[in-house]
Amino acid sequence: MNLYQKFTLAGVLAIGAVAGSDAAFAQASTEATADTKYILSSLLFLIGGFLVMFMAAGFAMLEAGLVRSKNVSMQCLKNIALYSVAGLMFWVVGYNLMYDGVTAGTGWMGTPTPKVIPATDADAGDYAAGSDWFFQMVFCAATASIVSGTIAERIRFWPFIIFTAILTGIIYPIQGSWEWGAGWLDGIGFSDFAGSTLVHSTGGWAALMGAIILGARAGKYGENGRINPIPGSSIPLATLGTFILWFGWFGFNGGSQLAMGTISDASSVSRIFVNTNLAAAAGVVVAIILTQIVYKKMDVTMALNGALAGLVSITAEPLTPSPVMAIMIGGIGGVIVVFAVPMLDKLKIDDVVGAIPVHLLAGIWGTMVVPLTNGDATFYAQAVGVISVGIFVSVSSAIVWLILKATIGIRVSPEEELEGLDKGEIGVEAYPEFARGGSAI
Amino acid sequence: MNLYQKFTLAGVLAIGAVAGSDAAFAQASTEATADTKYILSSLLFLIGGFLVMFMAAGFAMLEAGLVRSKNVSMQCLKNIALYSVAGLMFWVVGYNLMYDGVTAGTGWMGTPTPKVIPATDADAGDYAAGSDWFFQMVFCAATASIVSGTIAERIRFWPFIIFTAILTGIIYPIQGSWEWGAGWLDGIGFSDFAGSTLVHSTGGWAALMGAIILGARAGKYGENGRINPIPGSSIPLATLGTFILWFGWFGFNGGSQLAMGTISDASSVSRIFVNTNLAAAAGVVVAIILTQIVYKKMDVTMALNGALAGLVSITAEPLTPSPVMAIMIGGIGGVIVVFAVPMLDKLKIDDVVGAIPVHLLAGIWGTMVVPLTNGDATFYAQAVGVISVGIFVSVSSAIVWLILKATIGIRVSPEEELEGLDKGEIGVEAYPEFARGGSAI
Amino acid sequence: MNLYQKFTLAGVLAIGAVAGSDAAFAQASTEATADTKYILSSLLFLIGGFLVMFMAAGFAMLEAGLVRSKNVSMQCLKNIALYSVAGLMFWVVGYNLMYDGVTAGTGWMGTPTPKVIPATDADAGDYAAGSDWFFQMVFCAATASIVSGTIAERIRFWPFIIFTAILTGIIYPIQGSWEWGAGWLDGIGFSDFAGSTLVHSTGGWAALMGAIILGARAGKYGENGRINPIPGSSIPLATLGTFILWFGWFGFNGGSQLAMGTISDASSVSRIFVNTNLAAAAGVVVAIILTQIVYKKMDVTMALNGALAGLVSITAEPLTPSPVMAIMIGGIGGVIVVFAVPMLDKLKIDDVVGAIPVHLLAGIWGTMVVPLTNGDATFYAQAVGVISVGIFVSVSSAIVWLILKATIGIRVSPEEELEGLDKGEIGVEAYPEFARGGSAI
Repeated sequence: MNLYQKFTLAGVLAIGAVAGSDAAFAQASTEATADTKYILSSLLFLIGGFLVMFMAAGFAMLEAGLVRSKNVSMQCLKNIALYSVAGLMFWVVGYNLMYDGVTAGTGWMGTPTPKVIPATDADAGDYAAGSDWFFQMVFCAATASIVSGTIAERIRFWPFIIFTAILTGIIYPIQGSWEWGAGWLDGIGFSDFAGSTLVHSTGGWAALMGAIILGARAGKYGENGRINPIPGSSIPLATLGTFILWFGWFGFNGGSQLAMGTISDASSVSRIFVNTNLAAAAGVVVAIILTQIVYKKMDVTMALNGALAGLVSITAEPLTPSPVMAIMIGGIGGVIVVFAVPMLDKLKIDDVVGAIPVHLLAGIWGTMVVPLTNGDATFYAQAVGVISVGIFVSVSSAIVWLILKATIGIRVSPEEELEGLDKGEIGVEAYPEFARGGSAI
Repeated sequence: MNLYQKFTLAGVLAIGAVAGSDAAFAQASTEATADTKYILSSLLFLIGGFLVMFMAAGFAMLEAGLVRSKNVSMQCLKNIALYSVAGLMFWVVGYNLMYDGVTAGTGWMGTPTPKVIPATDADAGDYAAGSDWFFQMVFCAATASIVSGTIAERIRFWPFIIFTAILTGIIYPIQGSWEWGAGWLDGIGFSDFAGSTLVHSTGGWAALMGAIILGARAGKYGENGRINPIPGSSIPLATLGTFILWFGWFGFNGGSQLAMGTISDASSVSRIFVNTNLAAAAGVVVAIILTQIVYKKMDVTMALNGALAGLVSITAEPLTPSPVMAIMIGGIGGVIVVFAVPMLDKLKIDDVVGAIPVHLLAGIWGTMVVPLTNGDATFYAQAVGVISVGIFVSVSSAIVWLILKATIGIRVSPEEELEGLDKGEIGVEAYPEFARGGSAI
Repeated sequence: MNLYQKFTLAGVLAIGAVAGSDAAFAQASTEATADTKYILSSLLFLIGGFLVMFMAAGFAMLEAGLVRSKNVSMQCLKNIALYSVAGLMFWVVGYNLMYDGVTAGTGWMGTPTPKVIPATDADAGDYAAGSDWFFQMVFCAATASIVSGTIAERIRFWPFIIFTAILTGIIYPIQGSWEWGAGWLDGIGFSDFAGSTLVHSTGGWAALMGAIILGARAGKYGENGRINPIPGSSIPLATLGTFILWFGWFGFNGGSQLAMGTISDASSVSRIFVNTNLAAAAGVVVAIILTQIVYKKMDVTMALNGALAGLVSITAEPLTPSPVMAIMIGGIGGVIVVFAVPMLDKLKIDDVVGAIPVHLLAGIWGTMVVPLTNGDATFYAQAVGVISVGIFVSVSSAIVWLILKATIGIRVSPEEELEGLDKGEIGVEAYPEFARGGSAI
């Protein structure tokens, strides 16, 4: 190497160094570092998780408001108990049954073992294992919350808890493994971003089977097809519950982006917030206008369920729709609620809070409409997902309900139902000082 | 270029490269990267946004608790409907009317077009467009929530909704463009950090016009100037609503820092949290002590409104005050509430929840006191802002209320008002089982 | 320097530049930058802080639901007042008394001066000073909330407020300085991660002294040792309060990691969320099963208190336990509640909401069990902490209560207690329209 060559080499190195330095500069000045990504994605799970956790309070208030005062304490007890049981079961077997050891693209379930939460420093991957478990657990609990509303005011406490344990520990995780565990539904291209099918329809199917096997509340369906409305005890609590659910849904859908470490992720989570809110708002407005047109009056519970139906509808795909599409998807959720609630009554399926229209039917709608805005989804795969989850959850739920019915029994006695479950089953009245003066059945 | 020159160039390049590398090093070890800043600022909008969104639940509970039980369902319906309508209108026209195409420093409005939420990767700027829209939308909705409380218990549902659509789609965005859209008020140096004037006074003026045009509730003002107190149906719900509003206010004021990418931003948001809490606490304590002194007893609704008045007062400038100043600003908010509530009654302006003292008067106070702690603000510009927004919102609101009154009518019939709006307008009672045994008018 | 030397230097510089650039590259791809760490840790304090702040609403609802309707307005007023007083006192003297100028390892208190919140850009350290103050303040307020429940329905408003001011401004900060202020308890190795002793037992001891000195509610303890149950007015509000507390506890325990700038921190916060939820769930399930076995029925208030006892139990050490241990620790919290509630009644200590079993006894249990999972803790140090805090808080609280009793008096008159504090003390009934028809004493 002569001097000139050496000189040239130095120049090249120097220029390379400048380029490298520029790249480092660019790197330093644009992308988040790996640790920052890890922290931000974990934070998304934790924030999303506590918002969805609070949906347990939302379901509790919605249901406490929509049952009669004689059953309110029981409904409160069921809600805090189901959230607790779900939290334990999803740790003991649920999480790993859903996520661990599922054969990619073809698997039908994982391995039912307790979830290991690695010690502080041993974590690896894109986010903290504990944040992921927490986020997935609250989804599992939400599924169980859906069931408790439909079958309220007549189911006994312990059979309900046993069903909840099986739903959250076995049924929900197995069907969840098919898609979110990267199993066979994921393999065929099924798409369910935040759980219109995996969470809401699953809860809806389990509730539907329970309602059918349990039968309607005494006095709900009179002779000659007469349907007796049974008003709830507290509209403000039901309204509060709906607002809490709406609030929590930003965690439900936003957190399902599963990452917050890039500007693309941040944009996506933001867009999800926008679409989630637009769909819910459209559900409310459509439900109010439709009830005004169809029934010539308004109905606050229809407005509340309109919000929830809009939210469920957008949950299968809150990212790809344009705002206009989000409004349309949520608005049709509102239509579904207004027409499905009386339809269920005609079928004499007694759904105390309207969870089947809101979670099951709007969940199916939301799932089937995904291909309109998401090019990666197909109607075929969506239909296969809806049907397969529907069959599995319905059949397995029905089996559990029927076994419970045949063994320990699932329904309170007619006397207890008349007197209210609060006195009969738990001995704590919800409002012991307020005289009943209304038209309660 | 001779060899020496070339050599020298190489050396310079090399030294430049070292310097560049050191700079990159320094960069990497202190400042957040550009992407991290983008993510953190978007996260601030999203967190602030969901906190403010939850204020919709707070307003709903506050109002549900402060109206009589015969009007509670209607108040719940109005609250979920107004939040939904605001969410749609602020997307259809509101956001761009407020922020898009406003002539900097002189503009009076933007362009009323739907807001485009860019697809995931196309975003640019300092934060995700969707997060910004969401954050601004919930402020717009809060403005409408203020109105619903004042004019409760006698306004018909549909006129209220039409007014809400105009307020959130047109009136609020136009005046908002003057300052936050960087229009003419911003040009003259008006300062309103988080909206004492833009949100709270705006809502307050619209509510005041509604209350005047609508008239008082039947039985509120008797003969010989007698003022009949009409107690609300549920103090715990009103308390819950106040706590939720306080909780949401951390998002309201903290998120209005609009950035979270530097330690300066993080310090500012933190200081805002501190001042926000101190002002609210002072509002409560002052209101309690004053009612004790003036009326020789305490009044829980005064304490609740003291908290809200403290919060509104600090909202125009939650960053620059020292803690002592924040306590003083919020405390005087509490004074305003205690004296303004009976003053309004003397004027026979029937404000069901006390929103005019809390949001309008404390909002003016908070705006006018900004120059005491923020050297960039002047009393002149603050006064111009308060007056111009006041005139615009009052006049435009009054026109809309009067047109509605002259066309479809805005007030329920006397019979319906007596019986309650729940039976008359929506057919769903709030508490159907609880006998009315109190002194309700 | 000859040409070759210069050349060589250039080459070395160039190579050094490349190496530097690589290092910058490596730096950029792993750790968060210093500013990012500062922002993220501040964000953890702010998020944790607003979650714990919302616990004030949780305590308010829990207590409003568990007192009789004639005392609900007063309970609401006390709760918003105590949160406000705590917020002011902890700024005026509390924070610095707890954290500023405590002699490391041996100190017994700091300096009672107002907390300075540095101006925006002047901050230094690992997080924003304001975020830290806010986070610590809400812990102080939570301590006062614990007291208000136990002594409800018979204590006068102003003595309660004076006690709250002393507790939050002096008593809580002094004992807090021993451990969290890095004083003498920290010096001997006492360990209390998020405050089983420092917050919950402290509140519990103060409540216990109040309950003893104040005496039981009229009619609670009859002749011949008969214990009259006095049911609360609203189980759904109590349930809501419990869910809000559970929700807020993620901020309470998770935020107590005090940092979010490394993957280790993010993992730790996540694990804390998991353990916190598992412990609470176990508390609920154990309480329900035990009441079923022992009393042959369920009791919703026991389930609610089981959740809270589980949460308090895990609060002293939510990080080191494995999930199994977290379940065990929380489950035993549930056991404590079920057996301690009737035990207190036998001692004729009238604790309206069960705060002494939940916060004091489960707090002691949680503190004493730390050494089982945390190798840095010793039973000796834990016992010293529990006992010393217990003695200090009990004695100082008792002195304050006794002075208040001897001077202005602490208990309402028998007539006022019978009629209810809402009419007697504040003139605002909680539910003025609902006839009392129940078995209220």
